Amino acid sequence: MPNSPTKSEISGGPRTRRVKGLRCRECGAEYQLQAIHFCQACFGPLDVAYDYEVIRQVISRERIQRGPASMWRYRDLLPIEDEAPIITLGEGFTPLVKADRLGALLGLKNLYLKNDSMNPTNSFKDRVVSVAVSWARVHGYETIGCASTGNLANSVAAYAARAGLECYVFVPDDTEEGKLIATGVFEPNVVAVRGNYDDVNRLCSQLIDEQDWAFCNINVRPYYAEGSKTLTFETAEQLGWELPDEIIIPIASGCQFVRHRRAIQELVDLGLVDKPDRLPRLTGAQAAGCAPVYNAWREGTEQITPVRPQTIARSIAIGNPSDGPYVIRIARETGGVVEAVTEEEIVDGMRLLARTEGIFTETAGGVTIGTLAKLARAGRWSGEEVVVAYITGHGLKTPEVVPLGGERRVEIEPTMRAFREKVSV
Amino acid sequence: MPNSPTKSEISGGPRTRRVKGLRCRECGAEYQLQAIHFCQACFGPLDVAYDYEVIRQVISRERIQRGPASMWRYRDLLPIEDEAPIITLGEGFTPLVKADRLGALLGLKNLYLKNDSMNPTNSFKDRVVSVAVSWARVHGYETIGCASTGNLANSVAAYAARAGLECYVFVPDDTEEGKLIATGVFEPNVVAVRGNYDDVNRLCSQLIDEQDWAFCNINVRPYYAEGSKTLTFETAEQLGWELPDEIIIPIASGCQFVRHRRAIQELVDLGLVDKPDRLPRLTGAQAAGCAPVYNAWREGTEQITPVRPQTIARSIAIGNPSDGPYVIRIARETGGVVEAVTEEEIVDGMRLLARTEGIFTETAGGVTIGTLAKLARAGRWSGEEVVVAYITGHGLKTPEVVPLGGERRVEIEPTMRAFREKVSV
Repeated sequence: MPNSPTKSEISGGPRTRRVKGLRCRECGAEYQLQAIHFCQACFGPLDVAYDYEVIRQVISRERIQRGPASMWRYRDLLPIEDEAPIITLGEGFTPLVKADRLGALLGLKNLYLKNDSMNPTNSFKDRVVSVAVSWARVHGYETIGCASTGNLANSVAAYAARAGLECYVFVPDDTEEGKLIATGVFEPNVVAVRGNYDDVNRLCSQLIDEQDWAFCNINVRPYYAEGSKTLTFETAEQLGWELPDEIIIPIASGCQFVRHRRAIQELVDLGLVDKPDRLPRLTGAQAAGCAPVYNAWREGTEQITPVRPQTIARSIAIGNPSDGPYVIRIARETGGVVEAVTEEEIVDGMRLLARTEGIFTETAGGVTIGTLAKLARAGRWSGEEVVVAYITGHGLKTPEVVPLGGERRVEIEPTMRAFREKVSV
Repeated sequence: MPNSPTKSEISGGPRTRRVKGLRCRECGAEYQLQAIHFCQACFGPLDVAYDYEVIRQVISRERIQRGPASMWRYRDLLPIEDEAPIITLGEGFTPLVKADRLGALLGLKNLYLKNDSMNPTNSFKDRVVSVAVSWARVHGYETIGCASTGNLANSVAAYAARAGLECYVFVPDDTEEGKLIATGVFEPNVVAVRGNYDDVNRLCSQLIDEQDWAFCNINVRPYYAEGSKTLTFETAEQLGWELPDEIIIPIASGCQFVRHRRAIQELVDLGLVDKPDRLPRLTGAQAAGCAPVYNAWREGTEQITPVRPQTIARSIAIGNPSDGPYVIRIARETGGVVEAVTEEEIVDGMRLLARTEGIFTETAGGVTIGTLAKLARAGRWSGEEVVVAYITGHGLKTPEVVPLGGERRVEIEPTMRAFREKVSV
């Protein structure tokens, strides 16, 4: 274990603290706060357990609204105690914009886009990383690591730089150069692994036994994952403390999907939103080229058969998604679905979003919008529903899939005459 | 003039409205609200004139804080009347982060970074464009245009898409491909002009006589420019309604520099900040490869001699800056300076910011941080001053200047053995 002078202070404090420990999602076994992510008894995933009675005594809409203009306004529901310093770059509290032009095309009068590309490193990963790096630092870790398809590495490298911690990011050796440049500038140690994300992840899962490192999405995963909830907390707040009717969420490991379900429950149980007649439907979006969760959904099983990813939506190309079974269960329980879109539909989705709403998203956002469009055209909605699509990353992460077309570009000399001849109509 | 059904309603309303008209900065001649940007009498620049008595009656810190989490919380000080619809993507209200690690290196205990790369199209231009496109749409314009080095085109294309307006962006023919892809996805008409920004700008200035278009930074410039003020309004709010001691601002045309001076005056005059003993020093940053304002400053004149730009900081490479003389006057009056940095110092500034604070900025941000570092090392500050640097654009706009270095990258097979051999220490 790493040097940890502050560890006992933070995690071993008085019993009235709001973060109680870790609990197995399968067998309910309980653990003290530490860097582990699966149950020693049944291998089930571990979640952070809160003392909601403590939280209930302090939390309120007013307290949240008085908080910072970042996801940390929801600190009461995150696993970092109040006195611990946090590593922040102002992540979260991203805009929720009403999409009237896209909505009109899809027959949706109340379509909203949660634009999480407007984060410090341009993806929703900054939410989870801010929590993970804060947790790791306060618990004495000196090195941060991650297994990543690119966006997570970008974020981890940035937050490690801000925290002044050593950093190792593990990525597939064919990760897009744009993502690598945006990561490399923070000067982490980059380990390019010959293989796909699942190979990278497997290696890192072995490494935690040898290295005293905090791997954001492996041994620190229970804390990390909690950051995702803030996306849904904010959405409800921005809708005037109401929950939407349906949320479209891209699926990679399924980690954030599961957390959004938890976020909804917390909002309802703590009285932060008016208790709705029905919880929002949670709908998952995958690329057909890496659709293990969609495949299982279609076959009516919770059993996920791993696939070998083959898609431009690399940031969500996880062939063996750890939370896959939970995604299927939650989609079914809430009345959502899991859908998949082709490579062409992904690019169409990116272009559709850009030309109607002025938002440039990466391929994962194309999966989300492609899925939204596909479901809308199939008649899923009457048109009055409040539907929210989570746009989780920026188009500058994957510019190569929308190359410049020549159609609307002309080149001229800097003269009125040239303008009149070539441009003016 | 364009079709303008709403024009009389908006601009010809009752006398108690807060936006009164346009006023010449040089001779004081007054004009009704319209799409013009220079005085018909003396050719001086036109500024928006407000009725501050009307504003004073409504504005307060509380009202601002109850507003949206965007720059539109300062709508009372922007030239779009309350009943007019705005075109917004959630621009502004970007994080102001304390930079302790960079500050320690530079001997500054109270250094802050206003990270305006966290805007919808990743530069501060979204502030000015949101105002310009809103103004143009409400005044009946159907086509939006701009002369741009890249960032402005990116923003204008996005907001025109969101508004559903026709769009023409004029850029130098050698504009960086990344900026063009991020622009092209919004499907504007791109006019690549063979020449530099000053050539593009000259052409567009001629075009306004022929085309019924709203050129954001030409005929609509007085409204457009006002959006810049929000950067300084927010900085004061985020410092707890206090003004900093000094602000470092990159200089292109000088437009935003002038507006920050105005923003400070408005904050003080309207009692939004406690009246300081001394106004903040406003300090300008240029690239040595395009430093017409710095050259004039050094020579002790307000006369700007145009230069031919030759710098990687293309987004601020304006060789003939229209507001140059005002920048020099304001820097002198407030106790600021104008400084310039070499190409190497620009890249060093980008890398320094990234590795100490986890923020990836474009070359213009490298100019700002390079200037900050240069002034700090030259002993400009005692160390206690509150200094704010405006980071105006994102590193993914100009990734080519920070190519991947091989130093900290290793490539391995996905095995523990490979890790132990090549990575583990």
